[in-house]
Amino acid sequence: MEDSQRIVPEAYAPDPADQESLDVWGFRDTAFRAREDGVVELTGHRYGLCGEELADLLPWVHDTIHPGVTPHDLNPPSYPPAIPAPRQHPDFLEEIRKVLAEDQVTDDAELRLRHGHGHTQEEMYAIKYGALPRVPDLVVYPTEESHVVALVEAARRHDVCLIPYGGGTNVTDALRCPEEEERLIASVDMSRMNQIEWIDPENRMACIQAGAVGRHIVEQLGKYGFTIGHEPDSIEFSTLGGWVATHASGMKKNRYGNIEDIVVDVTVVTARGVLERHYLVPRESIGSGDSRRWVFGSEGAFGIVTKAVVKIFPLPEVQTYGSIIFPEFSDGVAFLEELTHHATPPASVRLVDNAQFQLSQMLKGRRTGLKKVVSAVEKFFVLRVKGFEADKMCACTLVFEGTKEEVAAQERATYRIAAKHRGMKAGAENGERGYQLTFGIAYIRDWIMNHYLIAESFETSVPWSEVGTLCERVKQRLRDEHAKRGLPGKPYVTCRVTQVYHTGVAVYFYFAFFFKGVENPSAVYSELEHAARDEVIRCGGSLSHHHGIGKIRRGFLPRVVSPGVLEWNRRIKEAVDPTNVFGCGNQNFADARED
Amino acid sequence: MEDSQRIVPEAYAPDPADQESLDVWGFRDTAFRAREDGVVELTGHRYGLCGEELADLLPWVHDTIHPGVTPHDLNPPSYPPAIPAPRQHPDFLEEIRKVLAEDQVTDDAELRLRHGHGHTQEEMYAIKYGALPRVPDLVVYPTEESHVVALVEAARRHDVCLIPYGGGTNVTDALRCPEEEERLIASVDMSRMNQIEWIDPENRMACIQAGAVGRHIVEQLGKYGFTIGHEPDSIEFSTLGGWVATHASGMKKNRYGNIEDIVVDVTVVTARGVLERHYLVPRESIGSGDSRRWVFGSEGAFGIVTKAVVKIFPLPEVQTYGSIIFPEFSDGVAFLEELTHHATPPASVRLVDNAQFQLSQMLKGRRTGLKKVVSAVEKFFVLRVKGFEADKMCACTLVFEGTKEEVAAQERATYRIAAKHRGMKAGAENGERGYQLTFGIAYIRDWIMNHYLIAESFETSVPWSEVGTLCERVKQRLRDEHAKRGLPGKPYVTCRVTQVYHTGVAVYFYFAFFFKGVENPSAVYSELEHAARDEVIRCGGSLSHHHGIGKIRRGFLPRVVSPGVLEWNRRIKEAVDPTNVFGCGNQNFADARED
Repeated sequence: MEDSQRIVPEAYAPDPADQESLDVWGFRDTAFRAREDGVVELTGHRYGLCGEELADLLPWVHDTIHPGVTPHDLNPPSYPPAIPAPRQHPDFLEEIRKVLAEDQVTDDAELRLRHGHGHTQEEMYAIKYGALPRVPDLVVYPTEESHVVALVEAARRHDVCLIPYGGGTNVTDALRCPEEEERLIASVDMSRMNQIEWIDPENRMACIQAGAVGRHIVEQLGKYGFTIGHEPDSIEFSTLGGWVATHASGMKKNRYGNIEDIVVDVTVVTARGVLERHYLVPRESIGSGDSRRWVFGSEGAFGIVTKAVVKIFPLPEVQTYGSIIFPEFSDGVAFLEELTHHATPPASVRLVDNAQFQLSQMLKGRRTGLKKVVSAVEKFFVLRVKGFEADKMCACTLVFEGTKEEVAAQERATYRIAAKHRGMKAGAENGERGYQLTFGIAYIRDWIMNHYLIAESFETSVPWSEVGTLCERVKQRLRDEHAKRGLPGKPYVTCRVTQVYHTGVAVYFYFAFFFKGVENPSAVYSELEHAARDEVIRCGGSLSHHHGIGKIRRGFLPRVVSPGVLEWNRRIKEAVDPTNVFGCGNQNFADARED
Repeated sequence: MEDSQRIVPEAYAPDPADQESLDVWGFRDTAFRAREDGVVELTGHRYGLCGEELADLLPWVHDTIHPGVTPHDLNPPSYPPAIPAPRQHPDFLEEIRKVLAEDQVTDDAELRLRHGHGHTQEEMYAIKYGALPRVPDLVVYPTEESHVVALVEAARRHDVCLIPYGGGTNVTDALRCPEEEERLIASVDMSRMNQIEWIDPENRMACIQAGAVGRHIVEQLGKYGFTIGHEPDSIEFSTLGGWVATHASGMKKNRYGNIEDIVVDVTVVTARGVLERHYLVPRESIGSGDSRRWVFGSEGAFGIVTKAVVKIFPLPEVQTYGSIIFPEFSDGVAFLEELTHHATPPASVRLVDNAQFQLSQMLKGRRTGLKKVVSAVEKFFVLRVKGFEADKMCACTLVFEGTKEEVAAQERATYRIAAKHRGMKAGAENGERGYQLTFGIAYIRDWIMNHYLIAESFETSVPWSEVGTLCERVKQRLRDEHAKRGLPGKPYVTCRVTQVYHTGVAVYFYFAFFFKGVENPSAVYSELEHAARDEVIRCGGSLSHHHGIGKIRRGFLPRVVSPGVLEWNRRIKEAVDPTNVFGCGNQNFADARED
């Protein structure tokens, strides 16, 4: 391939207004708050939800979870917590100073803290109401691949532990430092390796550095008429390197594929050298040359992804939204199954259960005038004329992308199949709102922690035949575990089907409870989440569809794979990283061997 | 998933009439022959070509390659060659006899020979006109997974080398025994592990033993209304285990995917235990649990695949064929690019160049009566009215599968885009003939060796922008190398684009020359093929799109991947197979380490 065909985009500089919070999810200018009058608002201007007056939310929380959630009764966080002093390693520092500039190395306490966690409830609870026992001792910011190579070499020579860091959005404790790690831990923050190196319009590829953030990739490729097609819920903050390391899935995977389908090639710096190809080809039949295999889902245990070549797609000629309501969740699942097996599903199709449908209704602003009347009429029609039950109905959001013809054909097939399963069209506006809600809703978790509500999401994948059973049994298990412990109020537990596959689906759960008066609420939450995962596995669900294993689910690995697989992992890790430079402790790679 | 949903098919027994040849490709009842009058025929009844009188073929060969190819001037093979005596290892034999019955172990000379090669020209020339210096010392036929486990354990304990054997159709010297191997070599023939264990219609999966042959899988699944969708050119003889081990591609991958897309789960017996999952899930985010990664394209170096769970698809509602002719190859490539990027390509789309188009015309039976007239009129129309040139035009064969609507939409888009690139519809009959020709044509190579013609295929994949250059330069390189050596007659070199991808295509070449009077023609052929591969790499082509690396292309690995990748392979191989039980010597896995 000749370089001359390639477009080299202008250097990219992030908008200085886009500051991210250190102590909570998201942008600094955006947060939920409960006004004195009980109305809830999302500050800032970034999301459709911003500026809406959410008057129904707290009353609904009172009915559904606990009446103790009020604007006045607060559980104020004490961020920042005590932060452990950094370990020193003057020889390592001296060596890396030879290649890194002054501003590429820091031991600032709050930055070290931030690099020592992701966004699990345990981690976020700890930094706000407790402490993290171990955080990185140093944060380094490479700006080019040679820096990463030098860092890995120095770490190997000086017996230092490196933990790669992308957007910090991880939810599997993968960024958490092993408490027992005695060596210096350096967090390798990839955020300054964030450029699109080139775009090849004819061969539909782009080479992108691993620290590039999803929203920047989309924005930049968009200028040239392309998109990457990968849109995980965390796209605003997560990075290409993180997507590869966690084996990520995007909301539009039906059209564009998951990360392993989108990545054409990847470069990884390891303790045994740099893994890369000398040139790019489409699919090939090669065992050894395909270094991609070793890094997808490796969660930092094998090396640092520095860049990847990804497929790019022309911006769709047409994008439309849609939504469908079903009388019951099982109707929706049957619809998804037929849609998957007998038609081409739209780019994104997500089915929320009744509890989540109700929540989404509470996240609507106050309606006035005609809108209020229309809403009331719609409600009357759905509940009285069509006979849907308010506590059973569920909804499906749809995003169609493609050429006019493709979208038209998909819309026809989708609504035709929906009608066979008692589905009723509920409009584009609801579809778009439901889809966009994902981004705003991510801010709720940290806010409600201040109001004694602890919440988290977890996910799985499961064959078609088990979807209904798994969803029901996992919810029931959480209700049972909640009751068994005599926890206050009612647990809120809800799920949605977020992805469809030939052989099954991905299911995403939210679970929350009121914790005022509960001792160690974060630990209690973890116990319940563990029980839920046990139930997931009993029901034939996977350990993870797209979040990963990290440290949070590693204990379950023997229930999923044979001893031979675990033995292979240990042997391979030892072979390619003999001094455990990449000592993050995720999965079972660095466990003691069964010799 | 509950077992009760699963269908367990009746035990499968192959048709005793389907005997395969030991010395040439294919079924024993099928072979090309040249009659006294120069007409060529394909014996038997299995293919559309059988019984046709191919009167034009030899005259065309005379013009195109060499006039010395005649029914009378033969180069008779001397199969079987001398076969090395088997090495003995009484302790190993004693141990495996404990689990294997009398008829599961053999040291029969011809069977050992057959298990020591695939179908490269070098191997086939050697068994007919030379000898193989090293073949397996023993052939074993496990009938269940526990036999494979016992074999691997015994091999490890007694320092024996195991080489897995599927359908024997390999074309990368992967089955050839390393000459320097001093240990006993046992070929593990998987053909008796050939059952479909279960079919799960709702979750669209089937569990199939690794030794099941493609045509049997298709036949059996078909009884239940399903297909696997994987149709490599070798489907009549190659096995599921072989497809996984070589990272195979099927002709209908546009609709069903390649083998890595179709396989949901796989079980592998290795020197460090059995790699398997305890239950089945759709896509998941897991590094360690995904034992699939280690085995796709591993070519026997890591273990023995015993079974796989694959996706199954309902038999298509509609299957139609089609064909298009283009004035020039570059028009056809431009058509394929637009079809791939702006529409949904049909299940199979293959573009043959002019030389291959000509050959396919010569493989038509004698036409009489009305057919002859129609053919002449068509020819007149194409060449005179439309202005196509007989020595430039090329053809594309199409197979559409899906629902009526899907097929109709694809046909419309395909022919509309073809017209933009000067393409002319050439009918369903030509499309079906072109597609089916693949199976009959496979018999030509062994037959023409008797007539002093040596031939072979090789393939690659390459980005869109380089397709034209690569095809032209590789052909020219072969013509130059042929001329440089003063070889007799003209070389026949032709290519087709067999697969399309988002970022590029797969290209398949045939190359043949007349070798009467040439010393060591097989070695000369290998030199030329090596030169062609050098040119492929210079043009940005991959080492292999679907044949694999084996031993034939391993020397090129350093031109494709970084030293780090090669180092990883050596380290991983050593870690998971420390005594090199799987000592086939493919790729660089067992090379000396760079310590």
